[in-house]
Amino acid sequence: MTKLFTMISNTPLPPYYAVIFSSLRTDNNAGYTETNALMNQLVIQQDGFLGMESAQSEIGVTISYWRDLAAIKTWKENLLHKDTQKKGQQLWYSHYKVRIAKVERDYEFQKQ
Amino acid sequence: MTKLFTMISNTPLPPYYAVIFSSLRTDNNAGYTETNALMNQLVIQQDGFLGMESAQSEIGVTISYWRDLAAIKTWKENLLHKDTQKKGQQLWYSHYKVRIAKVERDYEFQKQ
Repeated sequence: MTKLFTMISNTPLPPYYAVIFSSLRTDNNAGYTETNALMNQLVIQQDGFLGMESAQSEIGVTISYWRDLAAIKTWKENLLHKDTQKKGQQLWYSHYKVRIAKVERDYEFQKQ
Repeated sequence: MTKLFTMISNTPLPPYYAVIFSSLRTDNNAGYTETNALMNQLVIQQDGFLGMESAQSEIGVTISYWRDLAAIKTWKENLLHKDTQKKGQQLWYSHYKVRIAKVERDYEFQKQ
Protein backbone atom coordinates (compact mmCIF):
# COMPACT_ATOMS: atom_id res chain seq x y z
CA MET A 1 0.00 0.00 0.00
CA THR A 2 2.75 2.46 0.84
CA LYS A 3 3.93 2.31 -2.74
CA LEU A 4 0.65 3.51 -4.20
CA PHE A 5 0.60 6.93 -5.87
CA THR A 6 4.36 7.39 -5.96
CA MET A 7 4.49 7.48 -9.75
CA ILE A 8 3.35 10.10 -12.23
CA SER A 9 -0.26 9.35 -13.16
CA ASN A 10 -0.87 8.24 -16.69
CA THR A 11 -3.88 10.48 -17.21
CA PRO A 12 -5.82 10.66 -20.49
CA LEU A 13 -5.79 13.64 -22.82
CA PRO A 14 -7.27 16.82 -21.28
CA PRO A 15 -9.77 18.03 -20.36
CA TYR A 16 -10.14 16.26 -17.03
CA TYR A 17 -10.23 17.43 -13.43
CA ALA A 18 -7.69 17.68 -10.62
CA VAL A 19 -8.48 17.88 -6.91
CA ILE A 20 -5.52 19.48 -5.14
CA PHE A 21 -5.44 18.67 -1.43
CA SER A 22 -2.79 20.70 0.43
CA SER A 23 -2.45 19.97 4.13
CA LEU A 24 -0.59 20.64 7.33
CA ARG A 25 -0.67 17.89 9.93
CA THR A 26 -1.13 17.92 13.67
CA ASP A 27 1.07 15.76 15.91
CA ASN A 28 -1.75 13.25 16.23
CA ASN A 29 -1.16 10.21 14.01
CA ALA A 30 -3.70 7.91 15.67
CA GLY A 31 -5.20 5.70 12.98
CA TYR A 32 -3.84 7.84 10.15
CA THR A 33 -1.82 5.24 8.27
CA GLU A 34 -4.58 2.61 8.39
CA THR A 35 -7.27 5.04 7.31
CA ASN A 36 -5.08 6.45 4.55
CA ALA A 37 -4.48 2.93 3.22
CA LEU A 38 -8.20 2.19 3.33
CA MET A 39 -9.07 5.41 1.49
CA ASN A 40 -6.44 4.62 -1.15
CA GLN A 41 -8.00 1.19 -1.71
CA LEU A 42 -11.43 2.78 -1.95
CA VAL A 43 -10.59 5.71 -4.21
CA ILE A 44 -9.08 3.59 -6.97
CA GLN A 45 -12.39 1.75 -7.25
CA GLN A 46 -14.38 4.93 -7.86
CA ASP A 47 -15.98 5.45 -11.24
CA GLY A 48 -14.19 8.27 -13.02
CA PHE A 49 -11.00 8.06 -10.93
CA LEU A 50 -7.99 8.62 -13.21
CA GLY A 51 -5.00 8.63 -10.87
CA MET A 52 -3.36 10.16 -7.83
CA GLU A 53 0.00 11.67 -6.91
CA SER A 54 1.06 12.32 -3.33
CA ALA A 55 4.11 13.77 -1.59
CA GLN A 56 4.80 14.87 1.98
CA SER A 57 7.38 17.32 3.29
CA GLU A 58 6.56 20.09 5.79
CA ILE A 59 3.41 20.37 3.72
CA GLY A 60 1.45 17.46 2.24
CA VAL A 61 0.26 17.68 -1.34
CA THR A 62 -2.07 15.06 -2.80
CA ILE A 63 -3.58 15.47 -6.23
CA SER A 64 -6.29 13.16 -7.50
CA TYR A 65 -7.43 13.20 -11.11
CA TRP A 66 -11.02 12.67 -12.22
CA ARG A 67 -13.06 12.36 -15.38
CA ASP A 68 -15.58 15.04 -14.39
CA LEU A 69 -17.15 17.02 -11.55
CA ALA A 70 -19.85 14.40 -11.00
CA ALA A 71 -17.22 11.76 -10.16
CA ILE A 72 -15.55 14.17 -7.71
CA LYS A 73 -18.88 14.88 -6.03
CA THR A 74 -19.75 11.20 -5.67
CA TRP A 75 -16.39 10.50 -4.00
CA LYS A 76 -16.72 13.53 -1.72
CA GLU A 77 -20.08 12.21 -0.52
CA ASN A 78 -19.01 8.58 -0.10
CA LEU A 79 -19.99 7.69 3.46
CA LEU A 80 -16.67 6.13 4.49
CA HIS A 81 -14.87 9.07 2.93
CA LYS A 82 -17.13 11.55 4.73
CA ASP A 83 -16.37 9.85 8.04
CA THR A 84 -12.66 10.12 7.21
CA GLN A 85 -12.99 13.83 6.38
CA LYS A 86 -14.51 14.35 9.82
CA LYS A 87 -11.65 12.46 11.51
CA GLY A 88 -9.20 14.48 9.46
CA GLN A 89 -10.61 17.68 10.92
CA GLN A 90 -10.78 16.30 14.46
CA LEU A 91 -7.40 14.55 14.56
CA TRP A 92 -4.88 14.77 11.75
CA TYR A 93 -4.98 18.17 10.09
CA SER A 94 -4.42 21.63 11.51
CA HIS A 95 -5.06 23.25 8.14
CA TYR A 96 -5.99 22.07 4.68
CA LYS A 97 -7.19 23.54 1.44
CA VAL A 98 -8.98 21.76 -1.40
CA ARG A 99 -8.89 23.18 -4.91
CA ILE A 100 -10.96 21.80 -7.76
CA ALA A 101 -9.33 22.57 -11.09
CA LYS A 102 -9.98 21.72 -14.72
CA VAL A 103 -6.84 20.49 -16.45
CA GLU A 104 -6.80 22.21 -19.82
CA ARG A 105 -3.37 21.20 -21.08
CA ASP A 106 -0.49 18.93 -20.16
CA TYR A 107 2.92 17.91 -21.45
CA GLU A 108 5.53 15.48 -20.36
CA PHE A 109 9.25 14.74 -20.43
CA GLN A 110 10.69 11.27 -20.14
CA LYS A 111 14.39 10.41 -20.32
CA GLN A 112 15.26 7.95 -23.05
CA MET B 1 15.25 29.69 1.31
CA THR B 2 14.53 26.12 2.29
CA LYS B 3 11.47 27.30 4.19
CA LEU B 4 9.79 28.84 1.16
CA PHE B 5 6.61 27.17 -0.12
CA THR B 6 6.07 24.94 2.90
CA MET B 7 2.81 26.61 3.83
CA ILE B 8 -0.61 26.51 2.20
CA SER B 9 -0.80 29.35 -0.31
CA ASN B 10 -3.20 32.13 0.53
CA THR B 11 -4.63 32.35 -2.98
CA PRO B 12 -7.40 34.78 -3.96
CA LEU B 13 -10.95 33.74 -4.80
CA PRO B 14 -11.21 31.51 -7.91
CA PRO B 15 -10.91 31.51 -10.81
CA TYR B 16 -7.12 31.41 -11.08
CA TYR B 17 -4.66 28.93 -12.53
CA ALA B 18 -2.55 26.10 -11.13
CA VAL B 19 0.54 24.63 -12.76
CA ILE B 20 1.04 21.12 -11.41
CA PHE B 21 4.61 19.90 -11.81
CA SER B 22 4.98 16.20 -10.93
CA SER B 23 8.49 14.80 -11.16
CA LEU B 24 10.77 11.84 -10.63
CA ARG B 25 14.42 12.64 -9.96
CA THR B 26 17.62 11.08 -11.28
CA ASP B 27 20.53 10.40 -8.89
CA ASN B 28 22.27 13.52 -10.19
CA ASN B 29 21.93 16.41 -7.73
CA ALA B 30 24.68 18.59 -9.19
CA GLY B 31 23.62 22.21 -8.82
CA TYR B 32 20.04 21.30 -8.01
CA THR B 33 19.68 23.01 -4.61
CA GLU B 34 21.31 26.26 -5.74
CA THR B 35 19.28 26.43 -8.95
CA ASN B 36 16.08 25.59 -7.12
CA ALA B 37 16.73 28.41 -4.63
CA LEU B 38 17.43 30.82 -7.49
CA MET B 39 14.23 29.84 -9.31
CA ASN B 40 12.25 30.29 -6.09
CA GLN B 41 13.65 33.81 -5.69
CA LEU B 42 12.81 34.55 -9.28
CA VAL B 43 9.31 33.10 -9.44
CA ILE B 44 7.97 35.14 -6.52
CA GLN B 45 8.90 38.31 -8.42
CA GLN B 46 6.84 37.38 -11.48
CA ASP B 47 3.79 39.42 -12.30
CA GLY B 48 0.68 37.31 -11.71
CA PHE B 49 2.39 34.83 -9.36
CA LEU B 50 -0.02 33.92 -6.53
CA GLY B 51 1.78 31.24 -4.52
CA MET B 52 3.49 27.87 -4.57
CA GLU B 53 3.29 24.61 -2.62
CA SER B 54 5.92 21.92 -2.84
CA ALA B 55 6.48 18.47 -1.34
CA GLN B 56 8.89 15.66 -2.08
CA SER B 57 8.58 11.94 -1.35
CA GLU B 58 9.31 9.24 -3.92
CA ILE B 59 7.59 11.66 -6.27
CA GLY B 60 7.97 15.43 -6.21
CA VAL B 61 4.87 17.59 -6.50
CA THR B 62 5.13 21.35 -6.91
CA ILE B 63 2.09 23.48 -7.60
CA SER B 64 2.38 27.11 -8.53
CA TYR B 65 -0.65 29.39 -8.69
CA TRP B 66 -1.11 32.16 -11.23
CA ARG B 67 -3.51 34.96 -12.10
CA ASP B 68 -3.92 33.89 -15.73
CA LEU B 69 -2.46 31.95 -18.66
CA ALA B 70 -0.46 34.95 -19.86
CA ALA B 71 1.49 35.07 -16.58
CA ILE B 72 2.22 31.33 -16.86
CA LYS B 73 3.48 31.76 -20.41
CA THR B 74 5.75 34.67 -19.49
CA TRP B 75 7.33 32.64 -16.69
CA LYS B 76 7.73 29.58 -18.91
CA GLU B 77 9.62 31.70 -21.44
CA ASN B 78 11.80 33.56 -18.91
CA LEU B 79 15.38 33.02 -20.14
CA LEU B 80 16.86 31.90 -16.82
CA HIS B 81 13.89 29.60 -16.32
CA LYS B 82 14.26 28.16 -19.83
CA ASP B 83 17.91 27.41 -19.13
CA THR B 84 16.85 25.68 -15.92
CA GLN B 85 14.25 23.62 -17.76
CA LYS B 86 16.99 22.40 -20.08
CA LYS B 87 19.25 21.48 -17.15
CA GLY B 88 16.31 19.72 -15.55
CA GLN B 89 15.94 17.48 -18.59
CA GLN B 90 19.68 16.87 -18.89
CA LEU B 91 20.49 16.31 -15.22
CA TRP B 92 17.86 16.17 -12.54
CA TYR B 93 14.66 14.60 -13.84
CA SER B 94 14.03 11.19 -15.32
CA HIS B 95 10.35 11.94 -15.83
CA TYR B 96 8.08 14.89 -15.30
CA LYS B 97 4.63 15.99 -16.25
CA VAL B 98 3.23 19.52 -16.28
CA ARG B 99 -0.50 20.13 -16.08
CA ILE B 100 -2.09 23.54 -16.52
CA ALA B 101 -5.41 23.71 -14.72
CA LYS B 102 -8.01 26.36 -14.04
CA VAL B 103 -9.03 26.43 -10.37
CA GLU B 104 -12.80 26.76 -10.38
CA ARG B 105 -13.56 26.26 -6.70
CA ASP B 106 -11.75 25.96 -3.38
CA TYR B 107 -12.50 25.50 0.29
CA GLU B 108 -10.47 25.37 3.42
CA PHE B 109 -10.34 24.01 6.95
CA GLN B 110 -8.38 25.57 9.74
CA LYS B 111 -8.32 24.34 13.33
CA GLN B 112 -9.39 26.94 15.90
